[in-house]
Amino acid sequence: MRAFSSLVTHHRIPSMLAATGIATLLLMLLRPGVAHAMGVEEEAAFVFNTFSFLVWGALVMWMCAGFTMLEAGSVRTKNAAMICMKNIGLYSIAGLAYFVIGYNLMYVDVGRDATFLGLNLGDVIGTFALTYSSTAAEAALLEAEAGASAAGVLAESSYASMSDWFFQMVFVATTASIVSGALAERVKMWSFFLFVAFLTAFTYPLIGAWTWGGGWLSDLGFTDFAGSTIVHSTGGWAALAGLVVIGPRLGKFARDGSVRPTPPSNILVVTLGVFILWFGWFGFNGGSQLALGSAVNAVWMSIVLVNTNLAAASGVVVALIASRHILGRTDLFAVLNGAIAGLVSITAAPNFVDHYWAILIGAVGGLIVVAGLRFLEYVKIDDVVGAVPAHLFAGIWGTLAASIAGGAQLHIQLLGIAAIGATVFGISWCAWKALDMTLGARISHQVERLGQDAGELHMESYPEFVLMPDPDYYDDIEEEQEKAKG
Amino acid sequence: MRAFSSLVTHHRIPSMLAATGIATLLLMLLRPGVAHAMGVEEEAAFVFNTFSFLVWGALVMWMCAGFTMLEAGSVRTKNAAMICMKNIGLYSIAGLAYFVIGYNLMYVDVGRDATFLGLNLGDVIGTFALTYSSTAAEAALLEAEAGASAAGVLAESSYASMSDWFFQMVFVATTASIVSGALAERVKMWSFFLFVAFLTAFTYPLIGAWTWGGGWLSDLGFTDFAGSTIVHSTGGWAALAGLVVIGPRLGKFARDGSVRPTPPSNILVVTLGVFILWFGWFGFNGGSQLALGSAVNAVWMSIVLVNTNLAAASGVVVALIASRHILGRTDLFAVLNGAIAGLVSITAAPNFVDHYWAILIGAVGGLIVVAGLRFLEYVKIDDVVGAVPAHLFAGIWGTLAASIAGGAQLHIQLLGIAAIGATVFGISWCAWKALDMTLGARISHQVERLGQDAGELHMESYPEFVLMPDPDYYDDIEEEQEKAKG
Amino acid sequence: MRAFSSLVTHHRIPSMLAATGIATLLLMLLRPGVAHAMGVEEEAAFVFNTFSFLVWGALVMWMCAGFTMLEAGSVRTKNAAMICMKNIGLYSIAGLAYFVIGYNLMYVDVGRDATFLGLNLGDVIGTFALTYSSTAAEAALLEAEAGASAAGVLAESSYASMSDWFFQMVFVATTASIVSGALAERVKMWSFFLFVAFLTAFTYPLIGAWTWGGGWLSDLGFTDFAGSTIVHSTGGWAALAGLVVIGPRLGKFARDGSVRPTPPSNILVVTLGVFILWFGWFGFNGGSQLALGSAVNAVWMSIVLVNTNLAAASGVVVALIASRHILGRTDLFAVLNGAIAGLVSITAAPNFVDHYWAILIGAVGGLIVVAGLRFLEYVKIDDVVGAVPAHLFAGIWGTLAASIAGGAQLHIQLLGIAAIGATVFGISWCAWKALDMTLGARISHQVERLGQDAGELHMESYPEFVLMPDPDYYDDIEEEQEKAKG
Repeated sequence: MRAFSSLVTHHRIPSMLAATGIATLLLMLLRPGVAHAMGVEEEAAFVFNTFSFLVWGALVMWMCAGFTMLEAGSVRTKNAAMICMKNIGLYSIAGLAYFVIGYNLMYVDVGRDATFLGLNLGDVIGTFALTYSSTAAEAALLEAEAGASAAGVLAESSYASMSDWFFQMVFVATTASIVSGALAERVKMWSFFLFVAFLTAFTYPLIGAWTWGGGWLSDLGFTDFAGSTIVHSTGGWAALAGLVVIGPRLGKFARDGSVRPTPPSNILVVTLGVFILWFGWFGFNGGSQLALGSAVNAVWMSIVLVNTNLAAASGVVVALIASRHILGRTDLFAVLNGAIAGLVSITAAPNFVDHYWAILIGAVGGLIVVAGLRFLEYVKIDDVVGAVPAHLFAGIWGTLAASIAGGAQLHIQLLGIAAIGATVFGISWCAWKALDMTLGARISHQVERLGQDAGELHMESYPEFVLMPDPDYYDDIEEEQEKAKG
Repeated sequence: MRAFSSLVTHHRIPSMLAATGIATLLLMLLRPGVAHAMGVEEEAAFVFNTFSFLVWGALVMWMCAGFTMLEAGSVRTKNAAMICMKNIGLYSIAGLAYFVIGYNLMYVDVGRDATFLGLNLGDVIGTFALTYSSTAAEAALLEAEAGASAAGVLAESSYASMSDWFFQMVFVATTASIVSGALAERVKMWSFFLFVAFLTAFTYPLIGAWTWGGGWLSDLGFTDFAGSTIVHSTGGWAALAGLVVIGPRLGKFARDGSVRPTPPSNILVVTLGVFILWFGWFGFNGGSQLALGSAVNAVWMSIVLVNTNLAAASGVVVALIASRHILGRTDLFAVLNGAIAGLVSITAAPNFVDHYWAILIGAVGGLIVVAGLRFLEYVKIDDVVGAVPAHLFAGIWGTLAASIAGGAQLHIQLLGIAAIGATVFGISWCAWKALDMTLGARISHQVERLGQDAGELHMESYPEFVLMPDPDYYDDIEEEQEKAKG
Repeated sequence: MRAFSSLVTHHRIPSMLAATGIATLLLMLLRPGVAHAMGVEEEAAFVFNTFSFLVWGALVMWMCAGFTMLEAGSVRTKNAAMICMKNIGLYSIAGLAYFVIGYNLMYVDVGRDATFLGLNLGDVIGTFALTYSSTAAEAALLEAEAGASAAGVLAESSYASMSDWFFQMVFVATTASIVSGALAERVKMWSFFLFVAFLTAFTYPLIGAWTWGGGWLSDLGFTDFAGSTIVHSTGGWAALAGLVVIGPRLGKFARDGSVRPTPPSNILVVTLGVFILWFGWFGFNGGSQLALGSAVNAVWMSIVLVNTNLAAASGVVVALIASRHILGRTDLFAVLNGAIAGLVSITAAPNFVDHYWAILIGAVGGLIVVAGLRFLEYVKIDDVVGAVPAHLFAGIWGTLAASIAGGAQLHIQLLGIAAIGATVFGISWCAWKALDMTLGARISHQVERLGQDAGELHMESYPEFVLMPDPDYYDDIEEEQEKAKG
């Protein structure tokens, strides 16, 4: 029953649409003769649903390249190779950790009746199992067991189980990608990788178990279509905890209170990254429809893609105008983040809002990211790529907007945002602290000044190019240190 | 009836294929029992058609990243950030303008019976409506109105209405992308954005209403499968008008008659852009089949992709050989443009030409672009990326080739090329002139010398890299100015 | 019968799955009424199969951009434009050569009964035909011949014939891409292009005729799902032959026995290339399922994508750890190659191995590539991008792993590896020698020192960037030459 119920609970809250889907499937199972009235033929629906997961999932994997480029172009050249290393590493570690532990923790039903302090333990933390495999009927068919048939597979699920795993896995990688950018240029590589393993094996699956896994937030009616909060804010909170524990880059905030600019070292690469993310987001939101086996699903998926695009477009336009007033110049970096913020904002409800709501939601997202970039500087939090404004702040806005523009209940949305925020921030803060006290979360001042490429990887990202000498960011720090000594 | 007739008139001229498709659909509606004989089951066809629009449409959106990279690598480093800004901005503005105005102007049927000076006004200018929404049957189903059913949706259309909107929107963005490259390094950002809004809200939809919208050129039998003329030449004419109004970059054409070379500042990025465009073109041409709900459509779509690839490949090979003779060296920039020209050339008829014709059409395209690059220099038109040869010249050739290689009537093709050319060039010339007389279309000489990145955006695209001092392109201009003063 | 039998023999060895597919199709043809029991409705299956080829094939084409970026970032800046030229050129030439000659040589059945020295000549070398076209039933339908119907097309094949051609064509281009990277920085452009034409018109199709074309290796039961050996090792052997004939770059191996480092000039671009390849590999392996017309195929395709991703991820993690010990530092370039090696390793059997086997196979691949990079330096073979370890060594491992982890027979796998290796290496060695004795395979020392961009293309890849003066790699060579003279 896991696979079947998952149409409702995996990855989205029951809605009119999902209810229709289930009704259709039940009708199809009970009365095959009328199946055509409400969906395509059962086996064709299975293929459509599966292919949708695979094609859109591949696009979401491609978003990892987008994050990599966005971040590698944003950091200073002396840390660009390390960002590439962290990103290819995090995608790999996330995929393995989610395979071995995370997915099972998030979805497997065994033991859901365990309770603790009056809580349904299964619903709260999900359950843990070491392996994941295809469904029994799938395995029987693939191994040509006697009596195995496609009908058996179809009776068990409406899509191939591993296509769902694939789609969920690329989502967890997205969450991890958000962290690397915010903390760039000063987090130790191995500590970062350990954090990613923990995040993708435990933290994200816990949040997922509460929501898409069918846990208590899902039961209350918390609505988050493709993860404004579940994916993007989770990544944002994990990053923010790291920012608090690890602190800003040396010299970013001068002793005289001024903020030293650290402009992107290669804005072309940042732009490429944002286009990749936008492109991949069609998979992120489109695939989150979770089904393509009926005309109704096809209509919804189309609306999802259109709203996704409209919100991103208005995020760009608003950031273009707002940056002039808030940041004092028409700022390309802010405009690019406006696209991301528009995309994150619409992610909670691209399906049930009107198109003009999508434009408005994205527009507010664009405003939030520009103001957020300024706000973080004000509170002296040093987020290298603007991940916190673009993913956390815009993610919160999007989750609230789902109740303003759509039908979600505002207090439940607020509860979900608060519960997930407190949990992810709390767990992540402890994890960063633990890393800091053991391996050390932060590189030495010497390596930071030299850059992680030369200091940790013993290489240069652009070895043949003549680069500017580093500005004297560090002078007052050293001065301070000398005073402390003296 | 809009949605239904659109299978014929949206985006392509009635052809044997479309006729077959319509016949199939009519048959299916009239006699559901025989539907399987000429297409897949009706609801499955709806899903196939819709998913084809969404997947291929996403690939066409990705072409915007291709244009961005092509252009950002082609311009000098001092203008690379501005090109990124213009491209992310134009895609966003195009998407919004086409949503609010353009699509309705191009397709909505209301008022098509208005006439003016004996013309069917509806057919000539399309009609204007402020909003676009899903079809009535779709809306009823999604809102679960009593009596609403998938059958109602299927009776109204053979694909989700917003999937068609999505696919059309990425096309209009392509047209706008063509303009930014040609005029790079001297057009004011805000003037450019206003031009894009006008182009995508009015100019392109007007041309679209004449053709894919079912207007007079369509009625005459003008053939342009995926838009050699309708998309690419339209972009090319709009760019050419700007080139005429705004003039060449300072110092490009020296007073002694020589042409100063302005080689691409980052050829890797240009190459990446061309690969992105080639990849995206499978969506551009493949999706323009507009249907995937039958074996016949699948066969056609396969032929379209193969011909698209063959034409691009022969464009490359011919440009490789021709550039040596025409430009005096085996020129990578010309070879890359050879791919684009091959792709543009085949775009008018990838469906009904034989494979060897596709190779020949692409080959001629490759020759045209190399000769065109030289010709533009000769007539002192300064097209930074070769957009006019690659999109306008090759687009004209492709539209003519559709009559040579296929069945289109030559005089109708010529009429369409001329009518669209005169209209787009005329409107665009007026628009550029109007912008020039108000906001100013061109940046100041001071900003141009400094670069738009520093001058308008107050940033650098590669701030940590040591760059060559700019050559003394401008000396004779300043000398001239001093003489004028003195 | 060609098209029909191709479901079994094109591109993969008969297996349980394919057998099921054929059985299904036969059942469907014989008893349409029971078709739904074992697959989707026949025409829908045709559309699914075709669309799968087109979408996944487009992703494989995109891999060419991945190779281009990987290579262009790996070479020194003075050769980066030439690598771009070689890659856009090779993709184009491969597509044309495979169209005119290669595909027919690999698959067309005519003359398969010719024998020579007791061998079935058709089976050994395939057959040669000048043109390829759609199937007869397709052509009849498209030209609306009397009596033509979709049923005729369906009776002839289960997918559109040109969609298969498209998918096969992008595979041959992959093989050619492998060669350009290994031999970068010293092979003459025109000689390289001639080699590519020969490789894609004759060498690869010969290997393909033995295997996916249904030849003797296929008959013996050689198993290579998507081409660990057939595509990747073939490219690797062709590259290795060139490396032997042409020799290392000037100064790479110093006279004192030391190896001079030639670090990637732009590691961001290399990283982007690897992400593109990983993304594209979902098409490479997923599309190699060759069918999507049933729930069973959808289940298999999902497993293939998951195993592909798991193997790449473990290749990365193992290379991350192993590089520290084998290469003395955590080496990003080795880690990136770890991803490629994981992907190549799993390519022979992503369908029938368990997920944990996929992780193990990728892990060993990651180890092999790191050790292989070291080994090549030891034997003084100068492979610029690590193509031989990543594609040849890992390809051999993957082909063997298919027998260890799955059901393939070890001695047949060894025979296939040896036969293909000896043939491709032998033919390629002769081809490189012939080129060397006629056009010359290697550029002059003067051009090599200057770089191919300036020396052959008369351009610079980064003309506005100030670059480091080249290190004195060449001094001992010149010293040697002077000694020889003196």
